[in-house]
This record gives sequence, C-alpha cells and structure tokens, in this order.
Amino acid sequence: MTAKVIKFRSPVYIFSSAAVGTDKEKNGPLGEYFDITSPDAKFGCDTFEKGESEMLRVAVNAALKKASLHEKELELFLAGDLMNQCTASTFALLDYGIPFAGLYGACSTMAEALALGSILIDSSHFSLIGTAVSSNFCTAERQFRVPLEYGSRKPPTAQWTVTGAGAVILSNKPRDLRGTDINKKEANSVAVVEALIGRMVDLGITDAANMGAAMAPAAADTILRYFRETGRTPDEFDIIATGDLGEEGVKLCRDLLAGEGLDLGSRHKDCGVLIYGEGNSNKNGERMSGGSGCACSAVVLAGYFARLFANQKIKRLLFVGTGAMMSPQSVMQGLSIPGIAHAVTIEAM
Amino acid sequence: MTAKVIKFRSPVYIFSSAAVGTDKEKNGPLGEYFDITSPDAKFGCDTFEKGESEMLRVAVNAALKKASLHEKELELFLAGDLMNQCTASTFALLDYGIPFAGLYGACSTMAEALALGSILIDSSHFSLIGTAVSSNFCTAERQFRVPLEYGSRKPPTAQWTVTGAGAVILSNKPRDLRGTDINKKEANSVAVVEALIGRMVDLGITDAANMGAAMAPAAADTILRYFRETGRTPDEFDIIATGDLGEEGVKLCRDLLAGEGLDLGSRHKDCGVLIYGEGNSNKNGERMSGGSGCACSAVVLAGYFARLFANQKIKRLLFVGTGAMMSPQSVMQGLSIPGIAHAVTIEAM
Repeated sequence: MTAKVIKFRSPVYIFSSAAVGTDKEKNGPLGEYFDITSPDAKFGCDTFEKGESEMLRVAVNAALKKASLHEKELELFLAGDLMNQCTASTFALLDYGIPFAGLYGACSTMAEALALGSILIDSSHFSLIGTAVSSNFCTAERQFRVPLEYGSRKPPTAQWTVTGAGAVILSNKPRDLRGTDINKKEANSVAVVEALIGRMVDLGITDAANMGAAMAPAAADTILRYFRETGRTPDEFDIIATGDLGEEGVKLCRDLLAGEGLDLGSRHKDCGVLIYGEGNSNKNGERMSGGSGCACSAVVLAGYFARLFANQKIKRLLFVGTGAMMSPQSVMQGLSIPGIAHAVTIEAM
Repeated sequence: MTAKVIKFRSPVYIFSSAAVGTDKEKNGPLGEYFDITSPDAKFGCDTFEKGESEMLRVAVNAALKKASLHEKELELFLAGDLMNQCTASTFALLDYGIPFAGLYGACSTMAEALALGSILIDSSHFSLIGTAVSSNFCTAERQFRVPLEYGSRKPPTAQWTVTGAGAVILSNKPRDLRGTDINKKEANSVAVVEALIGRMVDLGITDAANMGAAMAPAAADTILRYFRETGRTPDEFDIIATGDLGEEGVKLCRDLLAGEGLDLGSRHKDCGVLIYGEGNSNKNGERMSGGSGCACSAVVLAGYFARLFANQKIKRLLFVGTGAMMSPQSVMQGLSIPGIAHAVTIEAM
C-alpha cells in the first residue's frame, strides 16, 4: 500500500494564518497580502540566522493575535526551516514552552506540517495545533550554496529564496464558533479536508541551481496520484498550487502531466512564480526562475490564498508543497537531488 | 493547554525492529543485541555520509525481513538523522518509493517518530508505518564540531556519537495475527500505548561538548510531567530509559528530579551510558561521558530493549528520547543549546 489520499472524518479548520516578509516580498505583486513586512532582513537581530527565528516568531504571534489565542492554548507546534538542523524554528519557538515536533521537508515543509497536523487533529487527540515555517535568502545561500560575500552569479534556472515566514493554526473547530472573530473579512470558515503525503522522486538532477527541475517530477507524481485515486477532475478546483517550481519547474511539471494526459490549465498556479511576478522583475537578476524556500508556498497560502478564501474568490484549493531534498554534502558528493511533494485539499466550508 | 500524555484507543504494535551498528558498538556490552554490525563505518560506500544512508537502509531491510513485510506494504515512513537537512534518511529511503515525512528532533528523533507514528496509526488512517533514524560518529563530527582530520581532543563531558541505525515498524495489528511470525522468541506482542511530545527547555548551556547537560533539563521536564499527569509511580515501570544523557547528563537529570521529589531509582537507565558500558571503556578516551546520536537510543530500543521484551524480562518501559537542538551556526553565534525530550510508554501485551 503506497501513498493514499486521506479524507478527514471532520474538517480541520484553518483557525488563522499569517504571512511575514521583507520589503522585497512587499514590493512583489502579492505585497498587499502580507500581514507584516520589514525593510530589514535581519528583523532587528545581529545575524540573518537569528533574524529568521525572529521572523518566524513574528508570524506565529500575528496568527495567534488574529485568532485571539494565547500561545499556551496550542497543544503542539509542528515547524521546520531550511537552516542547518532546523534551528530557525527551534529558537523561534523555544520561549513559547509548547510541545514541539521538528519537521524537515525542505521547501515542502508547510505542506508536510499541514498534512501531519491535520491528521493529528483528525485523530481527536489534539484540538489546536500551530504550524510554521521560514526561510531567508541570506541564510539559505550560506547553507546550501555559497556565502553572499563571495558575490557568485547565478544561472537563470536558479530561484530566489523567499525571506519570510508563514504560520497557520489548525483547529477542530471553526473560529467563529468560539466568538473570538476579530476580522469579519477572514471569518469564513476554511478547512483542510484531505491530505496526501508524497514520496520522493528522483530523475537524476544534480544541479543545485535548478531546483525546479528537481522538484517537478515529485509534484507531477503527487498531482497524478491525487486525481487518479480520488477520481476528481482539475475543474473541481479553483486553484491547483505547486509550491516553488519556478518557471523552469512549472514547464517540466506541465510536460510530465501532459504525458499522462492531465492538463491542469490556467488553474495551475505556482507560488514561486506568483510571489515575485512573472518575468517583470527579472531584469535586475534578482528573481531568476521565481521564488523558492519554505516560506515561498507558506506565505502565498497564509497571505494570498487565505485572502482569496476570505473574500470568497475561491472555494477549493489543492495545495501541493514541493521540496528538494539535498545538502551541500550530498551535492558535493555527486548525489542527485530527489524531490518530494505533499498535498492538502483546502475548502471553504 | 500544554504537553499532555496521549493514551491510544488501541495498542500500536511494534511489528518488528532492527538495530545496526559497527564493530565499536558490537564490542560494547550490548553487542549481542545488534541484528547486523559491520567493521566498516562506511558500510562499503565511498563516503561516511553515503555509508550512513546505507546503514539506515540495512536497518530498514532487516526490520522488514523479520516481519516478512515487503517495503511497499508500508504506508508511510517517518525518519530523520543528524546530517545536514536529513540527507541520510532521504537517500536511504529514496528507492523504496514510500510516502515519506522527514523529522528532526536531534537525538530524540526515534522517540519523535514513535510518538507521531503511533498517533497517526491511532487516527485509523494508517495501519503500517516505518520509523528509522541513524547517526555516524564521523558525519556528526564534521556536521557539528570539526572534521576528524583536524585531530581535535575532547573534554570528558563530551559524548561519542553512536555509528548505527535503528528501525521500528509500527502496526495496528500484532504480528502473530498475520501468521508471519518467523522468530518465536520475538513474537510476544509489544505495543506503544502512550505518547508525550516534549517541549524545549533551555537552561543556558552553550558548550557543544556537554550535550548531556543541555538535554538533562528537558528529560527531567518530560519525566516529571508524565508522572504528574498520569498519577503513575516509577515502580510501575521495569525501565525508565533516557536517550543519551551520558554520565554527566544522568547526574544532572537525577538532581533535577530529586529537587522535585521524584526518585527513579535503579530502574532509570540511560541508553548513552548502556551502549558503551559504564566507565570501563573510558580509558582510551573513546567513550567519554557515554554514547549519543539519533542511533544511540534507537539501537538500544530496537536491539536490547526489544530482546528484553521478547524474553519477558520487562513488561513496561518509559522510553524518553532526548535531543539537543543546535547547529554549528547557533553555537558560533553564541546561542545556548535547548534540549527536548519525547516519551512513549511501551508495554508487553
């Protein structure tokens, strides 16, 4: 028995969500959907690493505030990031004193957290779970490629790691039932109703500057499995969103799906393409194939998609987080870069 | 609502388990409890990193074989390791093509996987889940401290990262009900019946060569919470096992518990102390305060404790995995080392 679509007995409500970024994200086409942005990628800290933790904490606090929740009401936190040994999440969440389970799914971590968190709530052992992820361009460059100070140039297939953090609070109850709705516009209930945990797929990509190509086969695998197993058709969704394939990866993913007879059409959006806009900001070389990083899909979900749901512009979303499983060592030792993609179905209730 | 002890509706059976190590582990007092050991820490690969993946794969294959399971029967794999971005697990599990959720709990990762995996099975959405973790002395030294080639010396508070891998397969059914029992001695049903996901605790330790001290407060926190919440007493357990506190950490943990009026007595065992033996192998400086690493508690559980259960020497075990949440960057940037400890109760059925 391999990957299966899990249908929850009860909807797992998105109690609240928050998206945090920097001015670069604010100046993109989705800028207005961020809850908080800062001109400072260090968020007032003395290192980018500490700043990433601070950013994640700011996102969690914003999500808690929107939901009028105290942190101690959360029974569990599922979080992860791209930094060495998930330290951005660790130090962000340390002071909350909440049970914590660290996750690592590379850029798919938000989808992994939503999938696992929703199943945990559906188990009835939990009623309120926090999820959050972060990424920072500067910490990711040092972690995975070369420190910024080296001034290396990137090929057009490379992607720009989003500096941001997204937080989503999951609950077994819709928020308006608690009488704590502080923002009518976002009070429409939205819930995770299905989850599909992905498997790793490796087509032999070894270029750490072409993550989109590494992740596209996994995205196609998960999307195909979802539609084959459920018997649903893409037109039942308003948006089918991949995490951070970028322009390169999107083309490959569409080709792979077309080869299997599946056409997602214009309802396929890629968070990596959406976040900095298509083509237009490419001129200064600071966008390349699109955005990436744990925060990429997380902020687009927690900010933009959340607003589309709140404004009743969309009613059903297939959110497919994509991750490239690699480390500097694995790349230097000549190993390929397997991709993974986890999916959750999110619906207006 | 913070950390709570989750009691499962049905026992989550340990379908099979396997422990893999090297000659160093084989030559320790628990040597006879390993399923497979190799004189080669690279397990036939050209790098320690690839060897760690191979070791994890060997452990998974051994656990599958014991249970007469085909890998495709597993519905999900929860795994993690200490290497940069969980690549040991990634490359170990890639070829299985099983849904995969990466975890990071430092040395507590096996306990994290058992806790989450058991809750997922108790949700009734899964019936067979694989869990596995690995660590390798050489990859961990390069990852967290300095490459071996530098020849640095360690203080006595340091611990020796276990080179090994442990795999545990969880199921909603006991193995003997499937009629596939291939080893009578291990056919007594053993199950996870409770889980407590820990919270991070930080008492300000900043010395990466004293992880026991960093983890002891978290271990004490989880153990205290467990007994206070359940109302149980330590004498209801045959063994209360901490993951890898080492001799230094054990002393601190006992002091912290004594301060709260809790005495675990001689039923408190630490996997880090057990694996290389107490004191006796300290002379050559290759043991120091004890063993550590993801594999430390995992192989002691999957090998030694599993055999004690099989031989009906023990009936109830509180397994408390301990982890130190740090990275080279966090230590170099002056941050302290928070600890975390997850617990599961394992019982003979």
